[in-house]
Amino acid sequence: MITCTTVLNVNEGSEEPFEKLLGELVANVLANEPGTPLFQFVRSLTVPRRYLVVEQYVDEEALARHSATEYLKVFVPAMLPLLAADPELHSYVPVPAGDPTRKTTDNQDRGLT
Amino acid sequence: MITCTTVLNVNEGSEEPFEKLLGELVANVLANEPGTPLFQFVRSLTVPRRYLVVEQYVDEEALARHSATEYLKVFVPAMLPLLAADPELHSYVPVPAGDPTRKTTDNQDRGLT
Repeated sequence: MITCTTVLNVNEGSEEPFEKLLGELVANVLANEPGTPLFQFVRSLTVPRRYLVVEQYVDEEALARHSATEYLKVFVPAMLPLLAADPELHSYVPVPAGDPTRKTTDNQDRGLT
Repeated sequence: MITCTTVLNVNEGSEEPFEKLLGELVANVLANEPGTPLFQFVRSLTVPRRYLVVEQYVDEEALARHSATEYLKVFVPAMLPLLAADPELHSYVPVPAGDPTRKTTDNQDRGLT
């Protein structure tokens, strides 16, 4: 499982179009990417206009499939002008001790590994 | 659903004890906190010794219950000396457009809202 996080800081006044764009992306991902068990964006409780996208891909192939989609190619150039700073992207891999009590199958059922 | 992320940068040479400590915390959370559908830690693919903990709590009460646990009170003072910098903590709330196609119950089944 590959976990990606993207922090997006949005320009003042661009929140609504930004949330609409990202909502459409989430809808596309959920409808088209079975290998993406988690794709969610949330808004900071403390920092105004700071959003976080949390993504999980079952493997490299699922991530590559996501990256190659037409809807992502449309989304990125439409979203970038709404940002106040460059996106902060990070990719992560599981740590064996990260979920020690969970049987692998149990994790897979819940899309955690 | 409340989403929390914590970025932890670990001292060189402290990775193993750190991963052991965090693995025990994950095991405790999964065994004792039904209101915490997601509690996972992962390691950065690009930044050495950078770890991310992604947590989701169904509500404020579940987060308060987590914060009050004995095992968390034991974990924090044991973990802090292993860090190279202060933890970077952020809390987030869902955005209505964040998961537009998912029926609420479907989200709850998958622990996403």
